[in-house]
Amino acid sequence: MHSSPSCSSSCSLSLPLSPLCSTGRGSESLSTEEKQEVRNTNTASDPSVMASVLSFYLSYLLLLSLSVCVLVCVSVWSSYWRGGFAWDGSALQFNWHPVLMVSGLLLLYGNGAVLYRVPLTWGQNKLPWKLLHAGLMLLALIFSIVGLCAVFDFHNKNNTPNLYSLHSWIGIAATALFALQWVFGAGVFLLPCSPPSLRGLLKPLHVWMGGGILVLSVAACISGINEKLFFVLKGVQSYSDLPSEAVLGNSLGVLIVAFGLVVMRILSNQNWQRPESRPEDLVYTPLLQEENE
Amino acid sequence: MHSSPSCSSSCSLSLPLSPLCSTGRGSESLSTEEKQEVRNTNTASDPSVMASVLSFYLSYLLLLSLSVCVLVCVSVWSSYWRGGFAWDGSALQFNWHPVLMVSGLLLLYGNGAVLYRVPLTWGQNKLPWKLLHAGLMLLALIFSIVGLCAVFDFHNKNNTPNLYSLHSWIGIAATALFALQWVFGAGVFLLPCSPPSLRGLLKPLHVWMGGGILVLSVAACISGINEKLFFVLKGVQSYSDLPSEAVLGNSLGVLIVAFGLVVMRILSNQNWQRPESRPEDLVYTPLLQEENE
Repeated sequence: MHSSPSCSSSCSLSLPLSPLCSTGRGSESLSTEEKQEVRNTNTASDPSVMASVLSFYLSYLLLLSLSVCVLVCVSVWSSYWRGGFAWDGSALQFNWHPVLMVSGLLLLYGNGAVLYRVPLTWGQNKLPWKLLHAGLMLLALIFSIVGLCAVFDFHNKNNTPNLYSLHSWIGIAATALFALQWVFGAGVFLLPCSPPSLRGLLKPLHVWMGGGILVLSVAACISGINEKLFFVLKGVQSYSDLPSEAVLGNSLGVLIVAFGLVVMRILSNQNWQRPESRPEDLVYTPLLQEENE
Repeated sequence: MHSSPSCSSSCSLSLPLSPLCSTGRGSESLSTEEKQEVRNTNTASDPSVMASVLSFYLSYLLLLSLSVCVLVCVSVWSSYWRGGFAWDGSALQFNWHPVLMVSGLLLLYGNGAVLYRVPLTWGQNKLPWKLLHAGLMLLALIFSIVGLCAVFDFHNKNNTPNLYSLHSWIGIAATALFALQWVFGAGVFLLPCSPPSLRGLLKPLHVWMGGGILVLSVAACISGINEKLFFVLKGVQSYSDLPSEAVLGNSLGVLIVAFGLVVMRILSNQNWQRPESRPEDLVYTPLLQEENE
């Protein structure tokens, strides 16, 4: 479908490569080193590329700042307001659940998803970044699974039923889809034996599923925080009085939504896609040819 | 940035236009009627275009089916399980809230968002579809505002505080952003006096904000259903026993998430974008030139 693009497509649509086209040389005739040199020269000299890279790093800085704020908020909530951590079947064991799910299924996941968008990684061998992407996602998955174990074990020890609330249904669906996504992703995009045609076919599905899992994760986080605040803020300190803990929990929810929106913004901006993944740049570094260079 | 694309970009990347390029004629030399004829011929004859159109309509059929299922579920929940509707400050007044918010901020909103992706609307004058898009979104906004009035008025008449839960924070943020999006969208993309450069500049922001509002809407729906089920299923029929109402409410939540994912899928598939909105088709029907044709 995207076969045989010619030079002018990258000329018109891809910022870093415009001088390449004006030479009239087909990109196929350039060596990898030449391509890299052209990319570096263009990146350094073109003000619009610089503006695009700068705006990326501002968004990325915002993403990292939000990641820190979310992590601090959920940790302070669990450790200070909810009494800290343990693995003894008490309420302190439950406290691992929000910290691990938010750290894994949201923060590590979101940061792992935008990894290929970091311009510093472009023009380099893709394989180490693939391994880092897969590694971050595996860590995110392990955090999520341990976070689920914390709450299942807590429920079982306290004779509380599992998996009845909508929050739990959405959360378990997000984790199950994430596990499937990781296994299929590793099998299709990491194993050298998988055919390039299969990679090309499944990549849009992988990207869409990735975004979908993020939406499920955000919905699970918001419903979980909302539910927990209704559970614990009763009696003297009611949720409706908006005590400090409620403000902290609600702020955590707002920060989580902001984090999700920034991840979506970074993923959806075509100028921030790793160049060989942009349709107009297929001529330069064909995705399927150089996938594992 | 997207200036002066040449024919080969649409040749290589845009399904409906490949024979156009093989003629060697610049698209600028074709009249609007000729372009339309070429588009129609290609659309009718190219099997890959047919496959793309067919897969769109299957996704669109799924979206419409999910819309009906969500509407039936939320209506049955409010009318049968929660006793029906009134506007008298009783619990029956609250029942308008889920029905109107889900109908407006989710179903009408999501269906309005994918309107430009329907291939039947392509190649036609865009203005009527813009008016329909804006009209559907206005209706969605009105439904949402009346849905908020229902719950505010219910709370006020029962001395219940407003806007303390995370669900309410996310829901009010979604509606406020939606109202802003509508006003700015109408001002920038509908008013004939707005400059094309401004439209080009703000379109990616409009699209990203649109997706963001959908995520907020899904998160607000899930947390709201979860909260309501914990509120009403207590005592003899506990939520944790998963009575019929709980299964219905949870299923409604799952259907809402599925609806959101299908909308995201339709919006993210570049092959389903209205042709002049695809970067590779800018040569064919420049967005800013033919915006209001």
